[in-house]
Amino acid sequence: MDATDSGSAGLLYLQVAERLAGAIRSGSLDSGERMPSVRELARQHGVSLTTVTQAYRWLEDQRLVEARPRSGYFVAARVRRLPEPEVSQPPADSRAVDISSLVEQVMTLANDRSVISFGAACPSEGLFNLERVRRAFNRAALRQRATLCRYPFGTGQEELRRAVARRALGLGCELDPAEVVITGSCLEAITLCLRCVTRPGDVVALESPTHFGFLEILESLHLRALEIPTHPRHGISLDALQLALDTQPVRAVLLVPTLSNPLGACMPLSERRRLAQMLAERRVPLVEDVLYNDLAEQDDRRRAVKSFDASGNVMICGSFSKTLAPGLRLGWVDAGRWGTALRRMKSSTSGSQTAVVESALAELLAQPGLESSFRQLRATIAARVDDARGLIAQSFPKGTRVTDPAGGYILWVELPQAVDSIALFHACVDEGICIAPGTMFSTSERFRHCIRLGVGGHWDEARRSALQRVGRIAAAMADAGYKPGQALGVAASMPASSSTRSTVSSTSSSIVVGR
Amino acid sequence: MDATDSGSAGLLYLQVAERLAGAIRSGSLDSGERMPSVRELARQHGVSLTTVTQAYRWLEDQRLVEARPRSGYFVAARVRRLPEPEVSQPPADSRAVDISSLVEQVMTLANDRSVISFGAACPSEGLFNLERVRRAFNRAALRQRATLCRYPFGTGQEELRRAVARRALGLGCELDPAEVVITGSCLEAITLCLRCVTRPGDVVALESPTHFGFLEILESLHLRALEIPTHPRHGISLDALQLALDTQPVRAVLLVPTLSNPLGACMPLSERRRLAQMLAERRVPLVEDVLYNDLAEQDDRRRAVKSFDASGNVMICGSFSKTLAPGLRLGWVDAGRWGTALRRMKSSTSGSQTAVVESALAELLAQPGLESSFRQLRATIAARVDDARGLIAQSFPKGTRVTDPAGGYILWVELPQAVDSIALFHACVDEGICIAPGTMFSTSERFRHCIRLGVGGHWDEARRSALQRVGRIAAAMADAGYKPGQALGVAASMPASSSTRSTVSSTSSSIVVGR
Repeated sequence: MDATDSGSAGLLYLQVAERLAGAIRSGSLDSGERMPSVRELARQHGVSLTTVTQAYRWLEDQRLVEARPRSGYFVAARVRRLPEPEVSQPPADSRAVDISSLVEQVMTLANDRSVISFGAACPSEGLFNLERVRRAFNRAALRQRATLCRYPFGTGQEELRRAVARRALGLGCELDPAEVVITGSCLEAITLCLRCVTRPGDVVALESPTHFGFLEILESLHLRALEIPTHPRHGISLDALQLALDTQPVRAVLLVPTLSNPLGACMPLSERRRLAQMLAERRVPLVEDVLYNDLAEQDDRRRAVKSFDASGNVMICGSFSKTLAPGLRLGWVDAGRWGTALRRMKSSTSGSQTAVVESALAELLAQPGLESSFRQLRATIAARVDDARGLIAQSFPKGTRVTDPAGGYILWVELPQAVDSIALFHACVDEGICIAPGTMFSTSERFRHCIRLGVGGHWDEARRSALQRVGRIAAAMADAGYKPGQALGVAASMPASSSTRSTVSSTSSSIVVGR
Repeated sequence: MDATDSGSAGLLYLQVAERLAGAIRSGSLDSGERMPSVRELARQHGVSLTTVTQAYRWLEDQRLVEARPRSGYFVAARVRRLPEPEVSQPPADSRAVDISSLVEQVMTLANDRSVISFGAACPSEGLFNLERVRRAFNRAALRQRATLCRYPFGTGQEELRRAVARRALGLGCELDPAEVVITGSCLEAITLCLRCVTRPGDVVALESPTHFGFLEILESLHLRALEIPTHPRHGISLDALQLALDTQPVRAVLLVPTLSNPLGACMPLSERRRLAQMLAERRVPLVEDVLYNDLAEQDDRRRAVKSFDASGNVMICGSFSKTLAPGLRLGWVDAGRWGTALRRMKSSTSGSQTAVVESALAELLAQPGLESSFRQLRATIAARVDDARGLIAQSFPKGTRVTDPAGGYILWVELPQAVDSIALFHACVDEGICIAPGTMFSTSERFRHCIRLGVGGHWDEARRSALQRVGRIAAAMADAGYKPGQALGVAASMPASSSTRSTVSSTSSSIVVGR
């Protein structure tokens, strides 16, 4: 049997390719180095020549190797390696939050399909199996058609609550399906958790930088944000968190322990255990967002802090919109010892979701091949991130630092201090490109010279050029002489910053971006 | 052409039947009176004999007329007319809310399909065109399939926002589709509105009695409820509201001006205008719930208070789950001058809905025959309510008062003071029947002798008997000698109230009701 046949064996080439990609990324195989021949590799891995050829084609697509006529494959040139950012140093006090106006402006642009967007942390449609989702949806509509005219009640379709509990086993958690509540989105789940355990004016501790969406939730609930120093690779500093818990009235902690947004940090396993204990002892609840866990390569990074929680102190929230079908929405939560309160709050302030959609998601989660589709997703994304990091190394100004996340498609870029990310945002908008300025990710101004780049979108030459363009605009800004709209050959009759502000109004729903 | 043919003409018989039903309900045609002959009616209305025969069959189904062999049709016997409740007299101070535990217990039972439920205000599945909904859903899934794998963004599909604005014309409102936000439910819309305009501890004025769902929202947002005296037919007393606004720190008013829940009151048009002015002058926002407006028979009762609002002071919230397809969920809101704040709050704390579901609803709202299907729905419901009122008059204890709503399927029953509605609830549960005790509809205990009956559920002999049974249990309770489980021949080895409480636990999701 040819190993390239259908089914899980069909991904054999991907396994070979990933092993090689890993060696390239780690530096074991260096820039310009000659790769093993097809025949050699086939023998080494005990696979067919076709499989190896497929693997090489994939590596070529990902720009990790280059084919040279009559000479074979070579590791593609990597210009230079950039350092990672350092541990963040947020202010020691908690702050009221006021970022939603900037966020609205950026996100409206980030979702404008006429713009090349690095602004949102959304995966591109092409990463998912649309046909599979559509079929599941149709079958659910048939199976659940009686529910279309029935008033829904309760915490979600049982098949979906069971499927969520089954998936949570992969995160090391044994959840009781009866305790799982289906929500409209992961955001809704997190909002409900915070509403259960806080009152306006309370302090919530978070990573720094943190997801602007969390800051927006805090803002809308009138909560105060306490940012905790965070390592770009290992996540929140537990020593700093402990100090904060001992000295400040922290009422809840909201974290993404796996692939935090925007840093992409993953907490080490021992830290996860220590975090669970530290918070349980103080009875300070942890709201744990596991939205990205399935995107982490290694099993121990997928393991949730919830798996170390025996006292119901961790409220775990998730969704499959980053890994399975963004458009189905839906999230889920197991609120631990706040289960009853959360169920009541959900039922009284938003009610149930559409049963058909829940049923479609349940079916998708039960289909065979889910794990291998996640593996493929991770590999494709890793290649994009790798390519993006290479482009950043090539075209961004000297002194730039960039994260090297263990999965996902988010990069956090620290630019030279002279670069103002808001000005950079406006200059990019003038060229039809959207980025997310660093100020969106904190209550302080400390990240004004940083940007977040989401590289999960459709990856082609236009996007690669756009990324390089962002780097060159930033480089020009790093030089004092930069004037928006002039130095870079953009035809603009008035200063770009003011013209941009007038077209990117926070209330208009359709935005014309001058290219 | 035969007037009974398909299309809108097919409802001709219903128009004839409704006119006759109106005459019967108003008393123009009295109990036992002989109805006009088929031939006579056909001539009067200029319709075919078939149409009149269909009309009579419908009236017979609704138990409004009786056919006597060889004598023709007669107005069915109406036992006695019950008086309506009087204007409510709530306490003058605002109260913290704590009803969610009782509500959860009642609603879990109300939605248990093994129970005959008068507990929920939900229409039965049979009232809707399931096949039409299913087809719209399938077409939407095909049309919008690309969205299944696309991260949604924004305030809802434009086709749905347009359809909502078009429907709002029927409520006298010209809404800008760009200002309409699609929500997961009407409850979510109302919650968002209150979150926009209040902070915990603030006072919100409502009808009294009021929908327990509103009290639950207030409870979860830590708001105080100020109940305003309310007339069972004309709604909230504006004089009382004005006094409250002048003497108490009311931050928002939350009302159902058309077919309030549970009273079924409709504010007169002049009062709606006065309400809009009164609140605009004081800049106290009105959250107006128009969920039931399409169930009101008369145009002027469907007209929203929002139609009198020039200053954006009214936040209008609605849904089609009571009139079109309960299982699609979804609600909508135009938050007037709080539009920007509400859009931000929605996007940051719950995000968008599933595009396919929105698209299906948009299609259903655009289909021809919508008005006539609403008309048919109203007629069917009116007949059920009428029948239910007749049964209440027959079997409920002396001194009972009941509302005579201008639409909808909710009855509010005031029992003799001796009847404790919580005890009645438990006694009914023992017989597999669910009712909603009056204490759910207020922060005070004033409605302890009242119950709400939802008669929108599937209407058959079993349900009719169950309703009579509720009346007889209440009647037995009105006599001091009543002992639960004994006087009424229910075999119970222990006192019913304690056994009920043990089976109806607030956390169990499947409840066994001893019949």
